[in-house]
Amino acid sequence: MMSKAGMSDQAEYHRPTAARRAARTGRLTGYTSRCAPGYVQANLAILPASYAEDFLRFCQRNPQPCPLLDVSEPGDFTLPRLARDLDIRTDVPAYRVFRDGELTEEVADISQHWRDDLVTFALGCSLSTDQALLNAGLPVRHVERNEPAGMFVTSIETVPAGRFRGPMVVTMRPHKPADAIRAVQITTRFPKCHGAPVHIGLPRLIGIDDITKPDFGPERADVADDEMPVFWACGVTPQSVVRHAKPSLCITHKPGHMLLTDLTNESLALL
Amino acid sequence: MMSKAGMSDQAEYHRPTAARRAARTGRLTGYTSRCAPGYVQANLAILPASYAEDFLRFCQRNPQPCPLLDVSEPGDFTLPRLARDLDIRTDVPAYRVFRDGELTEEVADISQHWRDDLVTFALGCSLSTDQALLNAGLPVRHVERNEPAGMFVTSIETVPAGRFRGPMVVTMRPHKPADAIRAVQITTRFPKCHGAPVHIGLPRLIGIDDITKPDFGPERADVADDEMPVFWACGVTPQSVVRHAKPSLCITHKPGHMLLTDLTNESLALL
Repeated sequence: MMSKAGMSDQAEYHRPTAARRAARTGRLTGYTSRCAPGYVQANLAILPASYAEDFLRFCQRNPQPCPLLDVSEPGDFTLPRLARDLDIRTDVPAYRVFRDGELTEEVADISQHWRDDLVTFALGCSLSTDQALLNAGLPVRHVERNEPAGMFVTSIETVPAGRFRGPMVVTMRPHKPADAIRAVQITTRFPKCHGAPVHIGLPRLIGIDDITKPDFGPERADVADDEMPVFWACGVTPQSVVRHAKPSLCITHKPGHMLLTDLTNESLALL
Repeated sequence: MMSKAGMSDQAEYHRPTAARRAARTGRLTGYTSRCAPGYVQANLAILPASYAEDFLRFCQRNPQPCPLLDVSEPGDFTLPRLARDLDIRTDVPAYRVFRDGELTEEVADISQHWRDDLVTFALGCSLSTDQALLNAGLPVRHVERNEPAGMFVTSIETVPAGRFRGPMVVTMRPHKPADAIRAVQITTRFPKCHGAPVHIGLPRLIGIDDITKPDFGPERADVADDEMPVFWACGVTPQSVVRHAKPSLCITHKPGHMLLTDLTNESLALL
């Protein structure tokens, strides 16, 4: 859950450049969901080049959970197609460092961890599609409650690539049936932000036995009698897959502490 | 149900012009679903001008059940935007004539009923979207069974216009969840052929108490345990609405005996 202090902090940053500069200088250390509304926020994964080729193929084969916005050259800590003046080593509010699949540190700056063989992956996230749903007038329960969406590990297997494999993790949003249809249309416009749902209704078909008990996110989820559970591929999938591959080093953003890009959400819309 | 004889007949007509000419000369009197594959078939409603303005507004207000492809000038028995050399009085294989809302005749030619004040409405139908679903590799149960789709009268009220009002009739197609999502995407491309579904899952929310018992179409419908019922607005809606308005005269196609147009299905696709 987001602290009230964190929320008031982040809402100061209307522009992604300002938010990145604040992260770089240690003024922004909290959640980013309310920073720079209308701009794309990205999930971050940084891997040694020896793992990067497999992971790139994994993203290519699993575009719904792993919608790749950009990938860097080895050692390059910029992503000029996503953001001006970006230094990926400092401009995210908080990072997690994993060694051999184990979380070893949470840090505000990864300059001391940087190496010439590190490759940065920026993946689209559902903040953009949540915003698109809200813009279209659809209620989005978890946003109203200021919680993350309920996340579930499914029985849907991702397509493996090298050392990367594992189950797809999904987010669930409850919608009234007509809104569920509208939500399919709206999110189809954003394939770079997880795109259309992967499943609707009938949770047991994807290995979810209790829709009220997410594996991650809020303690409880609920679907009213007049609602359908709608399931989208989730950016936790690549995080989980990478951890299980136990790379010697992997650096990600801390959940909710995203990379702010200069792309507008609408610039990613298919139509 | 379609007779085997009717099926072999109609499959002779690969081009809509040939099918219309065969209807005009009395050689094609049966179902049209297998005529001229890839071309748009239309629902037909012919009304006196005194009713036409209200009905035009009704279509405008209810585009999903009443996707208007074209409307004629009063007395004009052509529809040049839909078909070359069309004579609406002779080129449909079978017609129904209603007086004051009651079916009085089924005829192969309406030349003797024609009047200078009659206005022709051509409405898109779900044959086009069924074809689009099949083209995309989705199974469509009722097509496999060579039956019409199950149709249900719902509790969804159409938006009234003048004397025209009444409940929306829907077709139901059972789809596996991932296919249901794909079906939303595919049919969204065809707003002139009923477009996206109006409802998914939870039949009781739209007044359907028993999903196995359609009001029209086959005797029984079924939805497997791993399927969702998906509901689209149906062209029976305007037929039902018009009959309840009890116009002094109304002429429609006989169900399944459609107007063949020269438009390709794909020419109507939004994108």
